[in-house]
Amino acid sequence: MNKQVKQLSISKIVGERSIISDDILAVEEPLEIRLDFGPVTDRTVKNISVTMRTPGNDMELAMGFLFTEGIVKSFDEITEVFHPIALCQTNTGNVIQVSLKTGTEPALQNSERNFYTTSSCGICGKASINAIRTTGATIINSDKLTISSELLHRLPQLLKQQQAVFEETGGLHAAALFDNSGHLLLVREDVGRHNALDKLIGAALTKNRMPLDYQILLLSGRASFELIQKAIMAGIRIIASVGAPSSLAVELAEEFGVSLIGFLRDGRFNIYTSPHRVLLPAHENTY
Amino acid sequence: MNKQVKQLSISKIVGERSIISDDILAVEEPLEIRLDFGPVTDRTVKNISVTMRTPGNDMELAMGFLFTEGIVKSFDEITEVFHPIALCQTNTGNVIQVSLKTGTEPALQNSERNFYTTSSCGICGKASINAIRTTGATIINSDKLTISSELLHRLPQLLKQQQAVFEETGGLHAAALFDNSGHLLLVREDVGRHNALDKLIGAALTKNRMPLDYQILLLSGRASFELIQKAIMAGIRIIASVGAPSSLAVELAEEFGVSLIGFLRDGRFNIYTSPHRVLLPAHENTY
Repeated sequence: MNKQVKQLSISKIVGERSIISDDILAVEEPLEIRLDFGPVTDRTVKNISVTMRTPGNDMELAMGFLFTEGIVKSFDEITEVFHPIALCQTNTGNVIQVSLKTGTEPALQNSERNFYTTSSCGICGKASINAIRTTGATIINSDKLTISSELLHRLPQLLKQQQAVFEETGGLHAAALFDNSGHLLLVREDVGRHNALDKLIGAALTKNRMPLDYQILLLSGRASFELIQKAIMAGIRIIASVGAPSSLAVELAEEFGVSLIGFLRDGRFNIYTSPHRVLLPAHENTY
Repeated sequence: MNKQVKQLSISKIVGERSIISDDILAVEEPLEIRLDFGPVTDRTVKNISVTMRTPGNDMELAMGFLFTEGIVKSFDEITEVFHPIALCQTNTGNVIQVSLKTGTEPALQNSERNFYTTSSCGICGKASINAIRTTGATIINSDKLTISSELLHRLPQLLKQQQAVFEETGGLHAAALFDNSGHLLLVREDVGRHNALDKLIGAALTKNRMPLDYQILLLSGRASFELIQKAIMAGIRIIASVGAPSSLAVELAEEFGVSLIGFLRDGRFNIYTSPHRVLLPAHENTY
């Protein structure tokens, strides 16, 4: 059994009948992300975040998090990613350290973006959107990516075929990248939806695939502001979610020219922003 | 239209046909929570957190957050909760300030519990559970609460009848309190599941209902470590979730003697911990 799932014995109730049965849970464990930076003679190691995540792909998660938060700008800035010390026998994998090149200054002010927005006007949705603009979110000039409605309808099923751990536990969110021929390029799962996306973007980063302006992102759940923000940092221009988007997710997608699709299931979907990238058969377009 | 939802015009695709239609979104906006404390002559105002939430019940959210994080110990410590300043016309409601009695010292070290655990051994699930023990989570001695399997099966439907905004948007999580006769006592909704629970517990706090040791908590989605932690702080002993629990949620419930039920839907559920509080008809118990 892999470390992403845990087996235990539980009572399963069907109607009024109880049976003792084995069950599989999605594992949730804390991961501390540390950043190591500065001149050779005066390195600083700083705790950046602790996230509750499903173990696995931790290096991708750490790099994806630092990138989507705007703290690290590119894969070139990173020299090493490793588990620094075995503090005790039970948690050897729960700390991860990312070392930056000498001379690379991490944009640590961005790590507090969610806490203190840059607007003098105070905190609001508009200020939160403006704050993302200042982190240097990838600006995409090429804008020729399109997707057919027929392919969009098929994406959830294509993802489901690959979502191995979710099938067992029902407890994991997934984020997946497709090309516009419907090939599934990457998929990552986690108990936290933001972690699944950070792992996905971290994996793309290590493969030098940035920006992801010719890929389609599929989210297994709802689309929040935070998820759209992370996708924008990676240059993604088409985001499809199986669940509902929030108001601020839609406003952010609108501001950055992202096509946001929601409620993608059962042969239906909604297009919230930039519908020009979704292609329908011509004879039906007049409805 | 209330401020919890926002209307906009979108493209709805059914099969290959597109229609322009009005749609309702769940609103997501940041809320900054500030704490005001210290001696009369030297008050400190400190930013504690920013959370992306659905507007409404903000005072309950702020108080519930401070309580479930262990920063504030009781409703008696709070003298005032208010929106401190109108920074600009668009965001008058997005800052909330909680004032503490003179002489009350907030346990601010607990607000960093998720970031630095107290264990010398480092960060792991076990250390995270131990950290909750040190925040002074409510210890319940009375333990006579039970619930019948028949009532458990009915809870999701009883919640659904009250979940007004979710019906419109499909985008809100809910947390609800029932008594063990099936009366719905309180329900709160939010784009963030942790916010929905903080609002619920904040509401119970202001009604002087703590601890909630004779109530049953129903969660509309999955059960994570964070949600179980918040419920434990409020003294809740039976938690039922419609979705899956994580491994650490189950471990935490086990440690604190909480009955954790998951996958409560379609006439079935699983009991992960402390099954003695769930009552089945005697003639069926032998399966």
